[in-house]
Amino acid sequence: MLQEIAEQPLVLERTITGERAKIDRLGTFLKGRDIDLIVLVARGSSDNASLFGRYLLEVTTGIPVSLSAPSVFTLYGAKLDLSRALVIGVSQSGEGSDINLVLESAKTSGAFTLGITNEADSTMAKIADETLLIHAGRERSVAATKTYTGQMLHFYLLASILGDRKLDYERIPAFTESALSLKDRVETLVERYVFMENCVVVGRGMNYGNSYELALKLMETCYVVAERFSSADFFHGPLAIVERRFPVIMFAPNGVTKKSNLDLLDNLRELHADCLAITNDPEIAAMSPKSLQLSPEIDEFLTPIPFIVPAQLFAAYLSTAKGLDPDAPRSLKKVTKTI
Amino acid sequence: MLQEIAEQPLVLERTITGERAKIDRLGTFLKGRDIDLIVLVARGSSDNASLFGRYLLEVTTGIPVSLSAPSVFTLYGAKLDLSRALVIGVSQSGEGSDINLVLESAKTSGAFTLGITNEADSTMAKIADETLLIHAGRERSVAATKTYTGQMLHFYLLASILGDRKLDYERIPAFTESALSLKDRVETLVERYVFMENCVVVGRGMNYGNSYELALKLMETCYVVAERFSSADFFHGPLAIVERRFPVIMFAPNGVTKKSNLDLLDNLRELHADCLAITNDPEIAAMSPKSLQLSPEIDEFLTPIPFIVPAQLFAAYLSTAKGLDPDAPRSLKKVTKTI
Repeated sequence: MLQEIAEQPLVLERTITGERAKIDRLGTFLKGRDIDLIVLVARGSSDNASLFGRYLLEVTTGIPVSLSAPSVFTLYGAKLDLSRALVIGVSQSGEGSDINLVLESAKTSGAFTLGITNEADSTMAKIADETLLIHAGRERSVAATKTYTGQMLHFYLLASILGDRKLDYERIPAFTESALSLKDRVETLVERYVFMENCVVVGRGMNYGNSYELALKLMETCYVVAERFSSADFFHGPLAIVERRFPVIMFAPNGVTKKSNLDLLDNLRELHADCLAITNDPEIAAMSPKSLQLSPEIDEFLTPIPFIVPAQLFAAYLSTAKGLDPDAPRSLKKVTKTI
Repeated sequence: MLQEIAEQPLVLERTITGERAKIDRLGTFLKGRDIDLIVLVARGSSDNASLFGRYLLEVTTGIPVSLSAPSVFTLYGAKLDLSRALVIGVSQSGEGSDINLVLESAKTSGAFTLGITNEADSTMAKIADETLLIHAGRERSVAATKTYTGQMLHFYLLASILGDRKLDYERIPAFTESALSLKDRVETLVERYVFMENCVVVGRGMNYGNSYELALKLMETCYVVAERFSSADFFHGPLAIVERRFPVIMFAPNGVTKKSNLDLLDNLRELHADCLAITNDPEIAAMSPKSLQLSPEIDEFLTPIPFIVPAQLFAAYLSTAKGLDPDAPRSLKKVTKTI
């Protein structure tokens, strides 16, 4: 897992270079279609990447995005009218049976289908009208890291052809590389969390998907019961679980979510909660008892990939500090086939 | 909270009678519009009701449904093209500022907007093109119960005018009444869970929203760190947190989700987890160490409202058994205004 975390800048770089021509062709093609809905279909970490993709695509393209509920198709056999939709399956292995079944059903109903996967020869690549590849090489750890950020990168590439906003995604590999320099700091910091059994991870907007992803990593590799919420939803009930020293980990970049994150930090301070902020904003860092700081240079829209890096490192090191093996989580398999 | 739980059959009955004429008119009107997307906008318990609404509407109408991310509008100022969409705001109080802002933005972009609320004079009722009322009377408990099931009921009413499937929703008040007879059984059962600090709630398809709602109730009223997953997503990582005696509560009706719930029960048995099934299927009940059983007569599509009743009772009684007051959760307010 640690090795695959470290490979990410290179994987991102290779993916940009390797897929650029295909993305440009796809952009020209999709401009000719009347797309009024984007549907994202995924499970697990790929679903968390899609949660980010949802925000990025809606904000930058103005096209509504729906995160598919696969069982609507697989269990209830619904036929949705997706004739004007772009349906995007996201799966590391390309072998998630339910995801592939949704793609097939969407094709039948006239949608244009796209696969985002790490496996060029997968079932998904055969089904989808077009496939965008993550150039990650084989991912051996059960806990997805380099394929998660590779999937996120593809949403930037798609946003750049479907929307008008200029996204400097070429800068992401360098920002990701610099995030890796937090390695030693994280390795020391995790000692403080060795006996943590529960926690809450919060994030909002572009970093909402990251809160799900860190919670999943903490469940998979550290067996911590980790909840995940947007900082907005957190006030609708879940805040009641926070007592003195309850651990809260926040993704809190500078940008439009800053005010609501500061409000939450204020509330958590009153409750004497134990906060760790992953941030690139000095004011947030000063307000939070603990923090992992990234470069203030990173624009909010570009934070999600570099910000997940210290979180991945946190899960991997904490797992080891707890006497566990992050690469061999109990009860799990790498490829999960669900119907 | 207990009193409001008990009022639910009456509230449901009153809501059906009170809104039927308006629903029929709305049906005629909406048939004349070209709706190719339904967007649901909500937070907290209303969002959990919408999660159910999403499944019911997609399966029965074939129209894709998106659960809105309010911050796309409120923080990022995105203008989505919703000209062919039906946008439905769901809020007990009708005063969720972010929900109302999304409704206003949707109206501007040409959508037909609908409000589902308990307050006829609320801001939401003034903004929305049409308002469907829950006839619940004032809800005094911070933990929503009767407005949650009232909101769910409205999705049946909407499904009946937008889709072709015959839904016997008139039977729901009686099924809900009979679910209340589990009261004594639940009051005794909760003693077993007095020291529970964490748990996982699972549900799938029509009962997926209920898993979120019970988890929220357990967080709000019992301060239990309660995770929520679909039984499908549970295999993608979170299963790793389950150790000997880890408590799992399942919504497991008879119907199309039965097979996957049986698979999960099998897995949980191997892990020596502690399972409580809320079910109306004898085979599921026999497989699960503990169960709360409802009438096998209830069709799967009609289970969500009666099935949440024993869950609400469970949270209310457990709160008291833990020495807490379910009507006065710490840190929370009844109306949450977020931007």
